[in-house]
Amino acid sequence: MKENIAIGIDIGGTNTSFGFVNKKGEVYFQKSISTQSYINFNDFINKLNTEIENGQKIISETKNIKLIGIGIGAPNSNYYTGNIENAPNLPWKGKIELVNIIKKYYKVPTFLTNDANAAAMGEMVFGGAKNMKNFVVVTLGTGLGCGIVANGSLVNGHRGAAGEMGHLIVKENGRACNCGNNGCLETYVSATGIVRTVRKLLGKQHNTSKLEQIPANGIDAKKISELANNGDNIAIEAFEQTGEKLGKALAKVVTITDPEAVFLFGGLAKAGNLIFEPTRLYFNKNVMNVFKNNIPILPSELNQNAAILGAAAMVF
Amino acid sequence: MKENIAIGIDIGGTNTSFGFVNKKGEVYFQKSISTQSYINFNDFINKLNTEIENGQKIISETKNIKLIGIGIGAPNSNYYTGNIENAPNLPWKGKIELVNIIKKYYKVPTFLTNDANAAAMGEMVFGGAKNMKNFVVVTLGTGLGCGIVANGSLVNGHRGAAGEMGHLIVKENGRACNCGNNGCLETYVSATGIVRTVRKLLGKQHNTSKLEQIPANGIDAKKISELANNGDNIAIEAFEQTGEKLGKALAKVVTITDPEAVFLFGGLAKAGNLIFEPTRLYFNKNVMNVFKNNIPILPSELNQNAAILGAAAMVF
Repeated sequence: MKENIAIGIDIGGTNTSFGFVNKKGEVYFQKSISTQSYINFNDFINKLNTEIENGQKIISETKNIKLIGIGIGAPNSNYYTGNIENAPNLPWKGKIELVNIIKKYYKVPTFLTNDANAAAMGEMVFGGAKNMKNFVVVTLGTGLGCGIVANGSLVNGHRGAAGEMGHLIVKENGRACNCGNNGCLETYVSATGIVRTVRKLLGKQHNTSKLEQIPANGIDAKKISELANNGDNIAIEAFEQTGEKLGKALAKVVTITDPEAVFLFGGLAKAGNLIFEPTRLYFNKNVMNVFKNNIPILPSELNQNAAILGAAAMVF
Repeated sequence: MKENIAIGIDIGGTNTSFGFVNKKGEVYFQKSISTQSYINFNDFINKLNTEIENGQKIISETKNIKLIGIGIGAPNSNYYTGNIENAPNLPWKGKIELVNIIKKYYKVPTFLTNDANAAAMGEMVFGGAKNMKNFVVVTLGTGLGCGIVANGSLVNGHRGAAGEMGHLIVKENGRACNCGNNGCLETYVSATGIVRTVRKLLGKQHNTSKLEQIPANGIDAKKISELANNGDNIAIEAFEQTGEKLGKALAKVVTITDPEAVFLFGGLAKAGNLIFEPTRLYFNKNVMNVFKNNIPILPSELNQNAAILGAAAMVF
């Protein structure tokens, strides 16, 4: 008997990864290609198709598979239209009718959603939210994304723009955001946000931080995390401030959506207790009684291949 | 042929209203009884049953009806358990297994939800949200409630506590709230919240407001609205500050849920432009571009019998 397989594709600003995934979340073949090398979208699609066909051949040597669908996660994607629209971090400008184009090649059901929604689907199908009908996934990358599941379904909203938690204004006249507003959550809580926090803290002239010895443009979230784990005071303070903002914002999202649990996903979430402890502390301080100490804030259980699994999960 | 009829019951702290409603939202018979006169819950249920039976007899004289279900809206209600739990504004303490009790008498499907969710259901079935799958209803009464519909279904959340928008913290160390926290939205935006705002503004010693001539405990939202319509400066300022807080909070709820429209329901919403204009202004100032000037903030289209219609809507 043939085994049902979905292709999960994760289109990022730097690289695009894809993989062949079965119902259990096992990845049979995966590969990455450069996104940014293909300024012309047709060239990108041709390269992607060639690699997918190559993958299919390799798998077919040992397994009997049937492609039942394709799921794609990409920034600035609209689930309803199947289009990528004006993505500032992708090389192709304007509107890309991605689902229509992919369907022409493969003639299987094809789904497109943004990265955070794909992460939420992945968590539900393959990760820690397997038995949950109401939960929230927050993705902490260059920006901050949020996928919300209610009544067992993804909340897409009217125009496919639900879950824009990264653009909750958490400080009036705060940091400038790419969206045009000021004080958006993601300017504080993201891999880039914590770097801005460190730069600001360095302005306060602590004399004991190793971060003073690195040029500002050499500081990244990973470095801050390493130094915090070694007891660096500014690095620790930066994580505390980040967790405070995240915990207070989660209190708002939980008050609106009443999830069973919240999952944190992505680079910053890998900093473990550095981020989880202040987040939980300020969440519980700022949420109403019915939710206090009642909402597990957990690391995502999707680690390797998470983006591919999340995209493929839309098919299953 | 018999006409399908639902009973809608609205249990409030002062009165309980019920009505027989058909699929078009026509109310054939309705009546109110006192809630607060019945300290003993069994006495209350006996009175309610007697009045419902009486209503059935009266309708049966002219119409051929079939009771297909009962919907109940009540404060502190849990949709999942069918219970009212620890309602501070009702005379019966602890847990009331309302749905189980009602089912024993009528042997039809019976649904219980909180007032704001009932208002959202009413808006969807009989009101302005008839063709919408994603929208938000905000009820402005003694407190502030919020019902959210996503993908065509009410968002109840994991424990039936979704939509607690009234308890978004909008000011750190702000006004004391009944929930135990400080700075909750409903301490500013509600019939009681606007009275607190007026009291605070009176402390600023404007000398031209008629509100100075009324004892503090004689000021209510209706009076403030009347005076604002007559150009009273403190009354107008109070509505502006209320709309500012509401608009900014709606920006947060919309950023999370991406609705097609927002409906305002209840006493304060009847103040018309006094509340709608500042709400829309500060909403659009504080929301990201995709939503700016893109989300209609509208008065509820349920006016008369709204609470009964909302409760009955759960059946249809």
